[in-house]
Amino acid sequence: MSKKNALYAQSGGVTAVINASACGVIETARKHKKHIDKVYAGRNGIIGALTEDLIDTSKESARDIAALRYTPSGAFGSCRYKLKGLEENRREYERLIEVFAAHNIGYFFYNGGGDSADTCLKVSQLSETLGYPIQAIHIPKTVDNDLPITDNCPGFGSVAKYIAVSTLEATFDVASMAKTSTKVFVLEVMGRHAGWIAAAGALASTDNCDLPIVILFPEVAFDRNKFLAKIDNMVKKYGYCSVVVSEGVKGADGKFLSDQGLRDAFGHAQLGGVAPVVANIVKDGLGLKYHWGVADYMQRAARHIASKTDVEQAYAMGKAAVSLAVKGHNSVMPTIDRVSNKPYRWKVGKASLDKVANVEKMMPANFISPDGFGITKKCRTYLEPLIKGEDYPPYKNGLPRYVRLQNRPVKKRAKTSFELK
Amino acid sequence: MSKKNALYAQSGGVTAVINASACGVIETARKHKKHIDKVYAGRNGIIGALTEDLIDTSKESARDIAALRYTPSGAFGSCRYKLKGLEENRREYERLIEVFAAHNIGYFFYNGGGDSADTCLKVSQLSETLGYPIQAIHIPKTVDNDLPITDNCPGFGSVAKYIAVSTLEATFDVASMAKTSTKVFVLEVMGRHAGWIAAAGALASTDNCDLPIVILFPEVAFDRNKFLAKIDNMVKKYGYCSVVVSEGVKGADGKFLSDQGLRDAFGHAQLGGVAPVVANIVKDGLGLKYHWGVADYMQRAARHIASKTDVEQAYAMGKAAVSLAVKGHNSVMPTIDRVSNKPYRWKVGKASLDKVANVEKMMPANFISPDGFGITKKCRTYLEPLIKGEDYPPYKNGLPRYVRLQNRPVKKRAKTSFELK
Repeated sequence: MSKKNALYAQSGGVTAVINASACGVIETARKHKKHIDKVYAGRNGIIGALTEDLIDTSKESARDIAALRYTPSGAFGSCRYKLKGLEENRREYERLIEVFAAHNIGYFFYNGGGDSADTCLKVSQLSETLGYPIQAIHIPKTVDNDLPITDNCPGFGSVAKYIAVSTLEATFDVASMAKTSTKVFVLEVMGRHAGWIAAAGALASTDNCDLPIVILFPEVAFDRNKFLAKIDNMVKKYGYCSVVVSEGVKGADGKFLSDQGLRDAFGHAQLGGVAPVVANIVKDGLGLKYHWGVADYMQRAARHIASKTDVEQAYAMGKAAVSLAVKGHNSVMPTIDRVSNKPYRWKVGKASLDKVANVEKMMPANFISPDGFGITKKCRTYLEPLIKGEDYPPYKNGLPRYVRLQNRPVKKRAKTSFELK
Repeated sequence: MSKKNALYAQSGGVTAVINASACGVIETARKHKKHIDKVYAGRNGIIGALTEDLIDTSKESARDIAALRYTPSGAFGSCRYKLKGLEENRREYERLIEVFAAHNIGYFFYNGGGDSADTCLKVSQLSETLGYPIQAIHIPKTVDNDLPITDNCPGFGSVAKYIAVSTLEATFDVASMAKTSTKVFVLEVMGRHAGWIAAAGALASTDNCDLPIVILFPEVAFDRNKFLAKIDNMVKKYGYCSVVVSEGVKGADGKFLSDQGLRDAFGHAQLGGVAPVVANIVKDGLGLKYHWGVADYMQRAARHIASKTDVEQAYAMGKAAVSLAVKGHNSVMPTIDRVSNKPYRWKVGKASLDKVANVEKMMPANFISPDGFGITKKCRTYLEPLIKGEDYPPYKNGLPRYVRLQNRPVKKRAKTSFELK
């Protein structure tokens, strides 16, 4: 096998552990000098590849690369840029191959969700057609936990841990205040289509510490009366309760609950913010005092409270991607295969990209409790190991010592330039 | 000195470390059996004292009391219930003395902010008038950091650390996404009158890691044009920026910015939520994509990322309160006295309650940068030591192992009962 360079790119919303996958890729590639020369990274993801704005990771010290393991966000920049189908958009795929060829890139590691799995698959297909050989390996990443085949997605476990811990802490808070003040706390979490993240809020209540927590899933149509009855019941029984609501919750009419709510002073609909809508429903319907929070970027960037399981799996996926490449695999994604629940054991597997691309894994119906406001034992058994273990970053002067790389550019070599449309 | 019981009560909004003060009180009192018999706690704060709903902390194991050190919220319940002045409300103060007498309570430890310092002072004054001797000691607690004399308030350091860390992490996130997506992230934090908590967001940017962070203080009247110019400037220079906004920010008209903004579908003003208002101003004024988060209860309950300095000081204040009581002091509050900045050293001092009650410490003008959007070096020097050090709680199955006490009631002994108005 002739020695080729590799291109690594981050795609879509970043996570607390996507850089741990990058760390796994780069550290492992550095151990396979016989096969892989340099690892380049796309600056701001695939846009960097298209515009030939590449980063030379070989200029980074071993220490800084190691620090990626505990640094959240996307160290090389990410982007929201979906390549369209091959027929509509052959120009972009051909451009990618042009850049790959100009830089002797033989391995393409694309770190993202369902869309990037699809892009990865198409790059691999086209490279065969065009006669320039590329091994395209997809590395799973998504806080939404919605990729198929893999038991779970790196990035999700840490968000789940953040939401479980925050729900626990805020519920303790509201319990302290409920006698004279706030009785209902509403926490808005991510999840446009699937309720995996909201489900994690339910982990805050355990056999040892029973807490009143109501989950609103995007999978369950919001029913105002049923919801108010549930809250009323919880507050009568416990004196207080917490609500964890997915941003993607919809009414029976199929419209986002968040869209039905807030308007600015000019009457324009406000995007985002289902938490205040739910809090208002509680106030109007039951007259209870409330507080609400929105976890937004904090939840997916919270490396300070990352799940150790998640960090290890993210790193392992990056490492496995390089191993698969070196072994000659193409058009595949390493996966996390659950071997057992108690004790939790997992191993690295692999999936063919044509089985991964464009398939969205929703929460199974039997993970949601019959009343639609909680999780089942089955769901708990699935989720619990994913938030297990702590993996604290090092601190200096009270703050995590996250790394910022030098991100030195690679000299341009392609014969043409390229404008993004 | 005859052996008396003690009453401990928590007041107002709870914090990540108020239970560390409770731990300091109870553990220290248990070492002074010669002076202090039992420590009772008011269930839900002063309301428990008024209604004779007392908790017997002597029934709790040493292990559970030790666990208070790492458990957020108010373990005995808190309340928002301000006792009015003595003239208007002699009935409530007399009732307190009645309950104290019925339970042989000679020490009153009241753990709260400015209002509770005032209550504490009045209890002490009235007990003299009525001839029933009470030593009333106030223990400082407030996330708002607005008590006078003490260099800082237990509870603030941990909120500050949470906000600094969250701002750092979310800013890394937006930096990764800015090329094609979000360019401005807005984080709403507590602080109705004083900008101490918002100021902590500025700590995320350091000499080693320069980040574009804009602070909106309640002390600075919001000026839309100046704000937009600042954001425009930051985004042009860095490509992105974060805004940390105090819930208490007001316009030049003196009205809360949050009140000027969101309405529900029926046109009712929405309380809370200055973050979406600021985000909307950014979108309307500059056309930039935004995300916003609201830290709400999460910030003050986040024991998982508490400041070690804060935990130690909170414990020390509880311990010092008991020491002061045993030495015969009355109508005082232990304080944190800063001895030096670098290295940071502090010692326990004390203040007379008549100097503490009803005095609010605002941010000094020279802590806010000339343009009104950041902090000065002086402010940084003040804040930095307060977030220093980590003090992680123990975990089980991925979640902090916070304690819930048994909170067994003390048998009622008072001759009369009491209804809250």
